Amino acid sequence: MKNYFLSVIVSLLLVQNAIAQPSNLNLALPNASQLVWQDAEMGALISYDLPVFQGRPYNQAENRITPISDANIFDPKELNTDQWILAAKSAGSKFAVLTVTHETGFALYQSDVNPYCMKAIKFQDGKGDIVRDFVNSCRKYGILPGLFVGIRWNSFFGVHDYKVAGNDEFAKNRQHFYKKMCEGMVKELCTRYGDLFMIWFDGGADDPNKDGADILPIVQKYQPNCLFYHNAQRADFRWGGSESGTVPYPCWATFPFPFSHSAKQKIVFANDFFLLKHGDEDGKYWMPAMSDAPLRGYDGGHDWFWNSNEDNHIFPLKNLMDMYRNSVGHNSTLIIGLTPDNRGLIPEADTKRLQEWGEAIKKEYGNPITEWKSVKNNYTLNVDEEIKEVVLQEKIAEGERVKSFIIEAFIGHKWVRVDQGSCIGHKYIHVFDKPLACKKIRLKIVESNGDPLIKSFSCY
Amino acid sequence: MKNYFLSVIVSLLLVQNAIAQPSNLNLALPNASQLVWQDAEMGALISYDLPVFQGRPYNQAENRITPISDANIFDPKELNTDQWILAAKSAGSKFAVLTVTHETGFALYQSDVNPYCMKAIKFQDGKGDIVRDFVNSCRKYGILPGLFVGIRWNSFFGVHDYKVAGNDEFAKNRQHFYKKMCEGMVKELCTRYGDLFMIWFDGGADDPNKDGADILPIVQKYQPNCLFYHNAQRADFRWGGSESGTVPYPCWATFPFPFSHSAKQKIVFANDFFLLKHGDEDGKYWMPAMSDAPLRGYDGGHDWFWNSNEDNHIFPLKNLMDMYRNSVGHNSTLIIGLTPDNRGLIPEADTKRLQEWGEAIKKEYGNPITEWKSVKNNYTLNVDEEIKEVVLQEKIAEGERVKSFIIEAFIGHKWVRVDQGSCIGHKYIHVFDKPLACKKIRLKIVESNGDPLIKSFSCY
Repeated sequence: MKNYFLSVIVSLLLVQNAIAQPSNLNLALPNASQLVWQDAEMGALISYDLPVFQGRPYNQAENRITPISDANIFDPKELNTDQWILAAKSAGSKFAVLTVTHETGFALYQSDVNPYCMKAIKFQDGKGDIVRDFVNSCRKYGILPGLFVGIRWNSFFGVHDYKVAGNDEFAKNRQHFYKKMCEGMVKELCTRYGDLFMIWFDGGADDPNKDGADILPIVQKYQPNCLFYHNAQRADFRWGGSESGTVPYPCWATFPFPFSHSAKQKIVFANDFFLLKHGDEDGKYWMPAMSDAPLRGYDGGHDWFWNSNEDNHIFPLKNLMDMYRNSVGHNSTLIIGLTPDNRGLIPEADTKRLQEWGEAIKKEYGNPITEWKSVKNNYTLNVDEEIKEVVLQEKIAEGERVKSFIIEAFIGHKWVRVDQGSCIGHKYIHVFDKPLACKKIRLKIVESNGDPLIKSFSCY
Repeated sequence: MKNYFLSVIVSLLLVQNAIAQPSNLNLALPNASQLVWQDAEMGALISYDLPVFQGRPYNQAENRITPISDANIFDPKELNTDQWILAAKSAGSKFAVLTVTHETGFALYQSDVNPYCMKAIKFQDGKGDIVRDFVNSCRKYGILPGLFVGIRWNSFFGVHDYKVAGNDEFAKNRQHFYKKMCEGMVKELCTRYGDLFMIWFDGGADDPNKDGADILPIVQKYQPNCLFYHNAQRADFRWGGSESGTVPYPCWATFPFPFSHSAKQKIVFANDFFLLKHGDEDGKYWMPAMSDAPLRGYDGGHDWFWNSNEDNHIFPLKNLMDMYRNSVGHNSTLIIGLTPDNRGLIPEADTKRLQEWGEAIKKEYGNPITEWKSVKNNYTLNVDEEIKEVVLQEKIAEGERVKSFIIEAFIGHKWVRVDQGSCIGHKYIHVFDKPLACKKIRLKIVESNGDPLIKSFSCY
């Protein structure tokens, strides 16, 4: 047994030495933060804003053009961000993102540049700072904190799809004020709460060469390692083209240009976001896809914000497991939307489901068969029992190299093709139609850009 | 001497009993608060807003369409509202009015409905309330407190001449929000600071039957005795048609309809505001004129807000005395505009001039010859020295009755006409071209609506 391990290690070292350098291959590569983001596999988006307290179902279209009549409805008497983070963590989230501002324009902290913030309300005597609470809870439980900033819509200030109404000088001046206010908020968020894992501009930030806030230099200056999502200058990841929590296969991490909603690139919107969903295997930009969905997206629901009496919208566990396989298992990072309620807590039904989900993922993928050995571009795994799934991972730090692969099982007395694919990336999960009884299973890399670098090959 | 007084009192009592009742005369009459306002004769308008801290001259046209880039410039480190009130009082002001909001939209108190207020800034840790400070200082020194609320312009929220930009549903919703926000501010101001002497909506409030805030019922409910200025429903006084601190003669306290800037009644604007300046002697509404001017209105200046290095704009004492005679002495209440600076103090040059002014008024009018006696509609005063001025007052509680009067002096051996006029009202001041040497002077009421009711007849 000792010798066997040694031979594996030696062969891996040989492979390491033999690989073509990425610079020679001209491959797009992730930066360190993107690697962490992809390794995380799952994060939570926690959406919280004034409409939660309106006492009627959230209506995004209406919300975008109707200022909330009284911001003092915001009064989460049992606010507990620890509970939020523990709920996210129980499902397996490694990072969490809070909506600092969404579409009302109301900011969940003590802004000195945006008066429409927690200073303006009676809650906690105007001293509340849910961004601070959230970040502290993240750190307490080892979750990476990210902030979501909505600047595309602001129903209070009068911003619709980035634009202040009107074309006169007054409108231009208010547009300029808004741009500066957004930049001011970004600086506050980047300088007050320590290192941020990501900052997420919903719908992107508008073009800084026109009327858009010039946010990228601020993030680069104060949070050089922070993931930036996104404007037409930079996007460290991309939307996966739906809010279903899944992406289709294949889903390459690479993309042909920096993507931004605000840039309104036609090719991005074509064919139901085909390019966002699939990426571009030859793309020169590393922009892995996220798969986002609200936990309450079932039975007619699609609730990024909490509404009362809608526990039935919580996805059943089976759907969540499918979602996991079709996001994480399709080389995409899963973002699950959580909805604190008007008490300030993730509802019990949600926390229960999140915990079940986390346990199910651990149960499913906690005990892999992974003792594979490689000979050239064939990787073979000895198996003792029936296998239901196969999971592959590339060493994506060196790029997405694999272009085509085959999985064969040794059934009876010969190798039989049981799966094939193109992209592996961070993770590829394949579930067999029915459990496979075999002694051995192997991965054959048919085509790759440079030497393929397989990180893991596991069965379950 | 005793007997003389007695006879005067008896004759006055006889007159009182004999007078025709106002109801029979169908005269417009002041209410109790209007009487106080006219008796006050002088009040101060204290203008304070973000532009004071901009470090460049105030520019109203620009200010109306340019949001202030950073409200935290508001930082009056030596703020002392006692000093403001003492300065106003030293000139003779009996009431003071503070700009709670002007045209930026920034509110000088802790509003729960307008986020753009003192909660939003770092000054006094976001706990400042200059309305509270101002009202407390007024009460401390026996000055009646009034509040000025500008809702016609709001460069932050995007309101121009009452209107939110745009015609779509979003604009309509924001207009409705703004209406409710203004109503909410009025309720806050009417319920938090005790009895208010007046509330002044600059430029008027817009028609509540259209998009305008419905403010009158709020003021009537919470401040039933408060002077209301103004909308198309009610105006307890009127603008005197200029910002010169004067009105022409005659200036009747009566007006044909409730006046409002927002109603844009053509007749009001005709002939350089002729109707506002002169009133209507047959008007059915008691709406006395104010004469407003900034103290810094000289030498090319017209500064409602402080600018640095403009002490030369402070009116010379002589001009202020002329202003007093042509406002108070023309049956109008004088409103003098004061300008706290960026330290939070009325500048020394201004306080010095105000004190000089108050002393000059006292010196000029402090020792009248008033021991007149009346026979029918002739009022005779014995004089021992040269007289420079004559001052008349009606008992306006019973209406403006006098329509025509003559002043005669007994010079040599006969009565000589030395002045004549129409309106007396609260106060009529006439300065003779040169001091008049005579033993007796008399007032003859030529025409009046019902019996004339003279309150005082004095010489100086």
